[in-house]
Amino acid sequence: MRTQVVIVGAGPSGLLLGQLLHKAGIDNVILERQSAEYVLGRIRAGVLEQVAVDVLDEAGMGERMHREGLVHEGFDLLFQGQRHRIDLKRLTGGKTVLVYGQTEVTRDLMAARAASGQTSVYEAQHVTLHDHDSAHPWVSYEKDGQTHRIDADFIAGCDGFHGVCRASVPRSAITEYEKVYPFGWLGLLADTPPVHEELIYVNSPRGFALCSMRSRTRSRYYLQVPLSDTLDNWSDQAFWDELRRRLDPAAAEALVTGPSIEKSIAPLRSFVSEPMRFGRLLLAGDAAHIVPPTGAKGLNLAATDVKYLADALIEHYQERSDAGLDGYSQRCLRRIWRAERFSWWFTSLMHRFPGEGEIAQKFQEAELDYLIHSEAGARTIAENYVGLPLDFGVRRA
Amino acid sequence: MRTQVVIVGAGPSGLLLGQLLHKAGIDNVILERQSAEYVLGRIRAGVLEQVAVDVLDEAGMGERMHREGLVHEGFDLLFQGQRHRIDLKRLTGGKTVLVYGQTEVTRDLMAARAASGQTSVYEAQHVTLHDHDSAHPWVSYEKDGQTHRIDADFIAGCDGFHGVCRASVPRSAITEYEKVYPFGWLGLLADTPPVHEELIYVNSPRGFALCSMRSRTRSRYYLQVPLSDTLDNWSDQAFWDELRRRLDPAAAEALVTGPSIEKSIAPLRSFVSEPMRFGRLLLAGDAAHIVPPTGAKGLNLAATDVKYLADALIEHYQERSDAGLDGYSQRCLRRIWRAERFSWWFTSLMHRFPGEGEIAQKFQEAELDYLIHSEAGARTIAENYVGLPLDFGVRRA
Repeated sequence: MRTQVVIVGAGPSGLLLGQLLHKAGIDNVILERQSAEYVLGRIRAGVLEQVAVDVLDEAGMGERMHREGLVHEGFDLLFQGQRHRIDLKRLTGGKTVLVYGQTEVTRDLMAARAASGQTSVYEAQHVTLHDHDSAHPWVSYEKDGQTHRIDADFIAGCDGFHGVCRASVPRSAITEYEKVYPFGWLGLLADTPPVHEELIYVNSPRGFALCSMRSRTRSRYYLQVPLSDTLDNWSDQAFWDELRRRLDPAAAEALVTGPSIEKSIAPLRSFVSEPMRFGRLLLAGDAAHIVPPTGAKGLNLAATDVKYLADALIEHYQERSDAGLDGYSQRCLRRIWRAERFSWWFTSLMHRFPGEGEIAQKFQEAELDYLIHSEAGARTIAENYVGLPLDFGVRRA
Repeated sequence: MRTQVVIVGAGPSGLLLGQLLHKAGIDNVILERQSAEYVLGRIRAGVLEQVAVDVLDEAGMGERMHREGLVHEGFDLLFQGQRHRIDLKRLTGGKTVLVYGQTEVTRDLMAARAASGQTSVYEAQHVTLHDHDSAHPWVSYEKDGQTHRIDADFIAGCDGFHGVCRASVPRSAITEYEKVYPFGWLGLLADTPPVHEELIYVNSPRGFALCSMRSRTRSRYYLQVPLSDTLDNWSDQAFWDELRRRLDPAAAEALVTGPSIEKSIAPLRSFVSEPMRFGRLLLAGDAAHIVPPTGAKGLNLAATDVKYLADALIEHYQERSDAGLDGYSQRCLRRIWRAERFSWWFTSLMHRFPGEGEIAQKFQEAELDYLIHSEAGARTIAENYVGLPLDFGVRRA
């Protein structure tokens, strides 16, 4: 088989890239190791920046997203037992975020993919990259006991942190930066009304908590837990009890509990690999970088990577210019480091770090107290949360 | 001997308190363990916030300070090899800082003390506090082989981190918060013109550096060094060579070197003890809290403690109200934690921390890049650097 761009990975990055390329008349094939059902079963983030919404609109994904998504104009910070609202809309001159689950984004993209007529191969085993540093890269995989070959102009690595694409690059060609956090997030999904109409980020001496949602009838809650904890430690009842202890009295009172429909523990990691282009192999999204989930930057960063990558490939085919491809890595990385910095900072501000002592909690409370009382301070958190503009910092204002 | 307030410590805190009380007609005695020459020989900070300038003006210390002090309207941040100016005056709506060495502040205060006719006892040995939790506190000390006793209404503990006053309080009555940093500052004083007319704070992969000054002809430079280093490791030549390596090419070129007139290594510490009042004993300045020197908050915090304490004592004597004394600790601590937070944050932003890996340097560079490109970000650093208003955060704007 031959195509213009072979995309490894059918998560939101790969599907969104395929859609943007398809709309520009660029032929592409998506290879995915798992089944479509497996991909849809992964519960991930649920907060979209305006920039990500714009890219999804451009890909034609707007209809259900705008109908079902919830526009949020602010969120609450809870510390020292009191809630304080960060008014995103006022502080950023009108910007908001959209609460719409990654699962729904993926579902919309899968439906569009099916309608596009472009080829998608699920349960592709032993995907292997070949000659990506030449002008004629190709990919092999196995399915139903047969070995297949796809020749392409480019390979897009959208296969996540554990994927084959980044792993195919010689170690000497990559610089990796990593920080692993000494705790995890225990998440619980339940078909209960959210405790509050906006998100609540909680700094408690007992550890971080987050009250999030997927819709007006589906809640998503998180607790900071030790890395040594397993799901066996956490019955639904134990989860709700602990969540209540981390909330303010009014929220604890208002909390509606119910049986979990999903529960999982995820580690937290900051990770960046540089560069993101290796000849005709281009990485995007989690394949190149991971953020801890505090601040919900993961899917948003992936969306802007994909936007830049689609633009660069379209420029290559339509204008016969490789300027976009040549600048792809640098263009992405500037934005990535900003989001990595914010995610690390917000994580550091809100969690208890074992061994850092009581002064660390006092520093956090003093910083939160400063942030909510300073217009400039509140604006720094708001402008990062809604997402810095695509061209931020390219020239000074 | 009997007095109204016995002040332990003749550093700037104790001297300033004595002067403010004297001007209000309150009799006081200062006891100092060291000689006046020893106190003057300690090289300390050199940047005064407007709030500290105002308190010194109120104490009648303004004349030489305003004549010789240098008004600074900004400073430079140097990272990734480039300098970027933080325009304090523009970002804070007109605020500036005053470069005037702590040694000069102390000298002015000593001269005023001598002129005031109030008693000061230098080289007072074995200062001991008695009955500070009663209505009749007293202090004993030895001098010239004799034991002396001073009865007072109040004891002001202005005797620094290692002083006797905080150590006289039962451990069970105090909560202490502490963070010790894994590096020190090597400082060098030289009679050379400063490399730049404003301060330069340097984030370099080789470690932090600071180009500061005491006057147009006297420079003060600092280098982050390992805690294991001693002055034997650092000849003047080695200092200048290393400083040049941490500067941008233009500054390295402009640097004028010369023989050091003082050189020392200081550890960095964040420390707060709560509360600051124990019956008739009241702590102020370094006796109650320490900040790392990044951001120059130490003397400024001491000045506002002393202002609050003087106000409270004056209210006690003139209005027969203890409201100021009762609120002293809480009033100070809110401001202290803000400055502690800023000093910790600015220290964390600018230094290399052993064992934190390359990603920490990247986070710092991304944060600095964000701060200088975001109006809100630049304002957060500027408003903290010039000093938050005395009433910051007491009510929301």
